[in-house]
Formats: sequence, C-alpha cells, structure tokens
Amino acid sequence: MSKQNIFYAQSGGVTAVINASACGVIETARQHKDKVGKVYAGRNGILGALNEELIDTSKETKKNIAGLRYTPGGAFGSCRYKLKSIEENRAQYERLIEVFEAHNIGYFLYNGGGDSQDTAHKVSQLSKTMGYPITCIGIPKTVDNDLPITDNCPGFGSVAKYVAISIREAGLDVASMAETSTKVFIMEVMGRHSGWIAAAGGLAAENAGDAPHIILLPEVPFNKATFLKRVDHCVKKYGFCAIVVSEGVRHPNGNFLADAGLTDAFGHTQLGGAAPVVAQLIKSELNYKYHWAVADYLQRSARHIASKTDVEQAYALGKAAVEYAIKGKNAIMVTIERKSGPRYGWKIGETPLKKVANVERELPKRYISKNGFGITQACRNYLEPLIAGEDYPPYKKGLPQYVKLKNILVKKKLEALVTD
Amino acid sequence: MSKQNIFYAQSGGVTAVINASACGVIETARQHKDKVGKVYAGRNGILGALNEELIDTSKETKKNIAGLRYTPGGAFGSCRYKLKSIEENRAQYERLIEVFEAHNIGYFLYNGGGDSQDTAHKVSQLSKTMGYPITCIGIPKTVDNDLPITDNCPGFGSVAKYVAISIREAGLDVASMAETSTKVFIMEVMGRHSGWIAAAGGLAAENAGDAPHIILLPEVPFNKATFLKRVDHCVKKYGFCAIVVSEGVRHPNGNFLADAGLTDAFGHTQLGGAAPVVAQLIKSELNYKYHWAVADYLQRSARHIASKTDVEQAYALGKAAVEYAIKGKNAIMVTIERKSGPRYGWKIGETPLKKVANVERELPKRYISKNGFGITQACRNYLEPLIAGEDYPPYKKGLPQYVKLKNILVKKKLEALVTD
Repeated sequence: MSKQNIFYAQSGGVTAVINASACGVIETARQHKDKVGKVYAGRNGILGALNEELIDTSKETKKNIAGLRYTPGGAFGSCRYKLKSIEENRAQYERLIEVFEAHNIGYFLYNGGGDSQDTAHKVSQLSKTMGYPITCIGIPKTVDNDLPITDNCPGFGSVAKYVAISIREAGLDVASMAETSTKVFIMEVMGRHSGWIAAAGGLAAENAGDAPHIILLPEVPFNKATFLKRVDHCVKKYGFCAIVVSEGVRHPNGNFLADAGLTDAFGHTQLGGAAPVVAQLIKSELNYKYHWAVADYLQRSARHIASKTDVEQAYALGKAAVEYAIKGKNAIMVTIERKSGPRYGWKIGETPLKKVANVERELPKRYISKNGFGITQACRNYLEPLIAGEDYPPYKKGLPQYVKLKNILVKKKLEALVTD
Repeated sequence: MSKQNIFYAQSGGVTAVINASACGVIETARQHKDKVGKVYAGRNGILGALNEELIDTSKETKKNIAGLRYTPGGAFGSCRYKLKSIEENRAQYERLIEVFEAHNIGYFLYNGGGDSQDTAHKVSQLSKTMGYPITCIGIPKTVDNDLPITDNCPGFGSVAKYVAISIREAGLDVASMAETSTKVFIMEVMGRHSGWIAAAGGLAAENAGDAPHIILLPEVPFNKATFLKRVDHCVKKYGFCAIVVSEGVRHPNGNFLADAGLTDAFGHTQLGGAAPVVAQLIKSELNYKYHWAVADYLQRSARHIASKTDVEQAYALGKAAVEYAIKGKNAIMVTIERKSGPRYGWKIGETPLKKVANVERELPKRYISKNGFGITQACRNYLEPLIAGEDYPPYKKGLPQYVKLKNILVKKKLEALVTD
C-alpha cells in the first residue's frame, strides 16, 4: 500500500494561532515524506471532506507554509458545522470514510474544540467497523480554554494577552482623564459559557488601583446593587473604574445581560452587547461619564500581539499530532501538560478522545476572588505563563505581512454529496 | 534673573504617544540646565496651573522619564477643560500668569489639539500686556489629525496603524468563517468630526477582496440603499464584507447614526454606537449574520503597536519645543513638515499659534474614492508613512512595562483659586 495521506481540518471559531498548528502539521509531514503522503486540508473545515473539497497543501511554497505560523484566521477556512450523531445521520460519517478512501487518506487530524473532538472520536470508532481504519488525532484549539485534561487550549493564551494588555492601556488612558472626563470604562470580552478570557484581564492589575478594578464573570450571577456599590467605591478611591465584562454575564434569573430587551426606533429588537448595558446602568444609577469598548473578533485575531508561549504550543501540538499519527497512536487528542515546579515548563501529552468529547472545563471557583469581582493568586499563577513572550509577525509598510495560500483543490473522484 | 522654569501640560484626549512628547520636553530641558530651570508639569493639564498643582519632574528618575517614551495615556493627567475667552473670564488668564510668576515660569509648553493651541495663543498675548512675558509654544497632539498646517498630528499615526492592523486581522477571521457563520463584520472607530481614522483602515486593503470593503466616513452622508447594495455585493463577490465605520457618520438629515433612538426595557434612551446600528440594519434588511466591535479607547491607547514614525515625531516635537523656547521663539506651534520627493522624509517646522487656533483640517475630498466607500491612492500615499515602523515597549511576564511616575507636587505659594 502506498503512503497514506493526511486529512487536516480547522473547525469552529478561528484563533490567532490555529494556523501555527497547521504549520506544525504540514512542516512535520513534509519532514516525513518516507512515511506519509500529502497533507490535504479541508476547505472550510469538515465541509471540505463532506464536499470532497480537499486543498493540496503540497502546492504551497515552503515560505508560505512557514508564514502560517504568524498568520491569524483559518488559512483553509473553518466552519461552524456540527456533524449529527451517528444515529441521526450515519450517512454523513459514511461519506467521510468514502472521501478518505477515495483519496488514500489514512490520518484524520481535526483541529478544534469540544464538538470537534467528539467528531474525531466518532470517526475513529466508525472507521474501524467499516473496514477502513483511519488514525484519528485531535488537536486542541479554542479561545474559550474550555477543553478538559489539556493544561490549556491554543488560542486562549493570545486572547488572554490581548485582553490584559488592552485593559492596562485603556486604564492608563482613563486614569489620566478621569478628573474632568470619563470615570468608568467598560471592555466587553468573549466567553459565553466561561470566564477564562475575562479572568485574564485581571493579570493587568498588579498594584492596588490598577485597571481592571472589576471583572464580571459568567460564573458569578450579576448582582446590580453590589456591582454599583463597587463601581462607586472605585471611582471615589482611585478616581476611575475600569471594568472587564464577559459577554456571558447573566442576571440571577439566567438571562444574559446582553439581552437587555432593547428596541430601536422601528421597534426591532436590538441585540446589544453586555458593555453598553453595563454602561447605561452606571449612567442611570450613578451618573458617571462612561466609555465602552467591545473587542469582539479583534481579540481572537490579534496575531500582532500573540503570546509566544501560545504560538509555540500551537505549533508543537500540530507537530506532535503528525508524529503520533505516524507512530500509529489513534483516537487521542494531543495535549499540553504543565510540569510541576516553581518555574513554568510544559511538554506534549495525550488523552483518549472519548475523555475529551463534549466535556467542558469551567473556571474553578478557587480562581475567583471572594467578592466575585477579581481573580485569585492561584488564577494568576495559572494564567501568567500562558501570556508570556511576544512573537511578532514581519511587517512591511507598517502592516503585518500575513500570508495568503493558493488553496488549490485536489481533483474530485466522487459524485457530489446529496445533502438531506 | 535666575534660570526660568518650564511649565508643560497635556490637554484633551490622551494618545499612545503624548508621553513621548513629554519625554522629549523633559530630556531636552535636562540637557540644557545651563539655560532653563526645571520642568513643572500641570497636574491634569491646565487645571494644574489654575490650581497651582505643579508636578516637579526633576524628582523623577532618568529611567522613568525615558520610560515615558513608551507609556500611553497622560503621565501627569490631562483634562477636558476649555478656558473661556479672555472677555468672559479674564481672571482665569490672570491666575495663570500669577502662578507662572510665583514659580518663575518663563516657558509655557502646551501639548494638545485646536482648543489648546488657542489657549496657548491667548496666554502669549495676555502675558505681554500684563508685564510678565512668557514664551508660549504649542506642541500638537490629537488622534483626530485635525490640526492645520502640520503635516500630521502625533497620536494619529498610531491609531491609524492600530485600526488598519485590527481590520486586517479581523478580516482574516471573518473570511475563514464566512461560509457557515458571520458574513458581515463592522468595526467602529473614533472621529466624530472627520474621517481620518476611519480612512486609515483602508490601508489594510491591498488587493481586491481584502478587508475593509467599505469605509463609512463622516464626510459622506449615509445612504442606506447604496450602502446595503454594496454590502450585498461584497458578500456575494468575496464571501464576506468587512466594514469600518466612523462614530461620526451621519444620516443625510445630519443626525448621527449612533443616535438611533434606542430605548431599553425601562424606556431609557440607549446611547448606542454606530456599529450596532449598522449591524442591526444589515440583519433586518439583508439577514446576514454579523459581528461588530467598538474599539473606543483601545485604539488611542494601543501603545503596544504604536507607529515608530509617530513615536519619533512626538518625541522630536517635544524636543524642538524646548529648543525653540530657549532660542526665544514665541507664540508658535512646532509642526511636522513633509519633505517632497518619492521617499518619505520629515523635519520639524513651526507656525504662528494664531494660524492654528480653532482651525480644523478636514479629510480632503480627493482622498475619498468616487463611490464614497473607500480611499484613493493619494490618501494612501499620505497615510502610509505615518504608520511605518514598530516601536515595541519592553515586556515582563507577558505584559508591557509602562512607567508610573511619582508626580510630586511643588509646594504652593499662592492662595487657593476661588472658582466662579
């Protein structure tokens, strides 16, 4: 049997470093041409496999593949597309196997979050029973940092760094203007289900009075009275109040703060962010001048200020996925293991996919300060190494020179998929 | 008469590089101890003079003063406080002179925008007639880039760079997800009166299809139908549409888009941004999935990705202000002059304060593309050099190490100001 090809796909929301994992996969596969064939990347993630739209990465120059290491977004396209369960749509899984077989694909490397690891797990199980075994390896990725077992998820460290730097910088701005102008600044960050990203903003505060003064986490039900009291206290004590609010903050009744029942002049529902809601509350109850920012995609695409640790880990996980695949390891997700000891160290580990699939890791209670508005030293100890180091992309005319691949598709061999 | 001291103050909204000008002022004054005394900085801008709250910068270490070059915000505090006209409140101007006389201040260096240059101009006129002549020099600063005569304003180049990088990065994110997720991304930037900052976003687009596809400028009245048609066209042609919208965009009737008549569940008016309004319009009329970001203070405090050109010019203007003051030049603002020729070059110039006071420079029509949604090559030629180069701050544990000064006040000699 000829050397088998690798199928690699990016899944779910992209990050500043998911392409660094792709870079690790492709560069490592190229180093092992005696053992593996080509790397085919799914165009728009798993859809690329279903639609037999396979990008032939061997057509890309060495330089451009190296450039993936510092290019944000998903170079081959990603997708928000969750495969149904095997029971609901066995045909989809059979289609995957059919495509893999048609293109001599022996390795399925899936780069994504919890749903993606679940898919990888199902593919690994099904392929065996269908007589076309494929080596399935998951590569973790999610800015939300919510995958279990792995010490952290590539993508998170860079968002964390961006958020901490941004609130530090904006805090200095507000502090210098507060006497006659804006007294409260609110920055909204991602994290619909967990507060990892918002918590990272806390790293910016090293001394009393430093921004942020308040972090609003999804894990802590929003208490209006306590919150307003704290805002007022900070303005009176420090002259200003800088707030990081997670998009996932909820009222005690479970409703999102962001879902504020806003309507525009035409009576349409306005899907506002959490930041403007908090701002409005402060204005109406405390009458402080405010400003707010919503970082949205800026935070997860901010490759210009990515964490070096994050980039290195993302690359190393992609590399390890290929090495483990060649070794015949199957149905695992590669992980980051934190070494014990006073100095931060890490190595690559692994865990069975079945242990990862559909399990979400929450921000531990011991990482949240007593008053619910800050982070503990234990949290800082966990987070700090993840944002360490800078890894600047190359610049030309003042702008980062991100690469754009040719993305040439492999010739199709099958009939088009008929979707139901 | 003993060597006279310098009064330096930061005025109006701060920037990522206004402290670089302060650094230029203080370091240069320290090099000329034979000619000038100390640099006293106003605590919270001009209020520091009115309240006789003068920060003695000689108490700061050489290292911390050097650190101002890479620290955003206003190190001594700034203010939004416009002096009334001489006719309305002559006492305020007399108070300034009184404070300057009490502390042997012979030089008034005022670092700010149009209003500040107007104040500097008035002080220069008044001091003469009051028998206590002071050398008044304006140092330009404004992210809005709206001062006349000077080629550009320190602070603008760094915001421009941040905005161009951010929309490039977010554009890559959206492009990779568009097939199954967000198709339209909107980033709101500053510029209530002019579109310089929004225009800078256009630098990110170097090839057809690159983000941003649409720039909404305050100079171009918002045409709903044309805009929606363009959004739809971009989504169909490029798969997605990335938009930079200035906070100052207006309807043809002159109303701000941001003032959308929003009310919350309690009937309170919601002061929304322009981005969510544009997003909502796209959702209701075209039904595309959207995301939006509001950069707000993040953009003007983003020292981590400041333009090297901007930092150098901010420093050079502070330096020149002291040198010109020593030479006895009076009632001028120091400026950046662009040299002619194919390669970018600049030098320090000067202009009488009376020519600058209260004059706003608009984005020229020839910088706006025919359809009103983009920038011309002439605009690119102007903007490109201003964002050139990176000037990274030092980092520790993953975070930029911005300096915090001691800000020790000079002992007061006068009675407190009685404000009217």
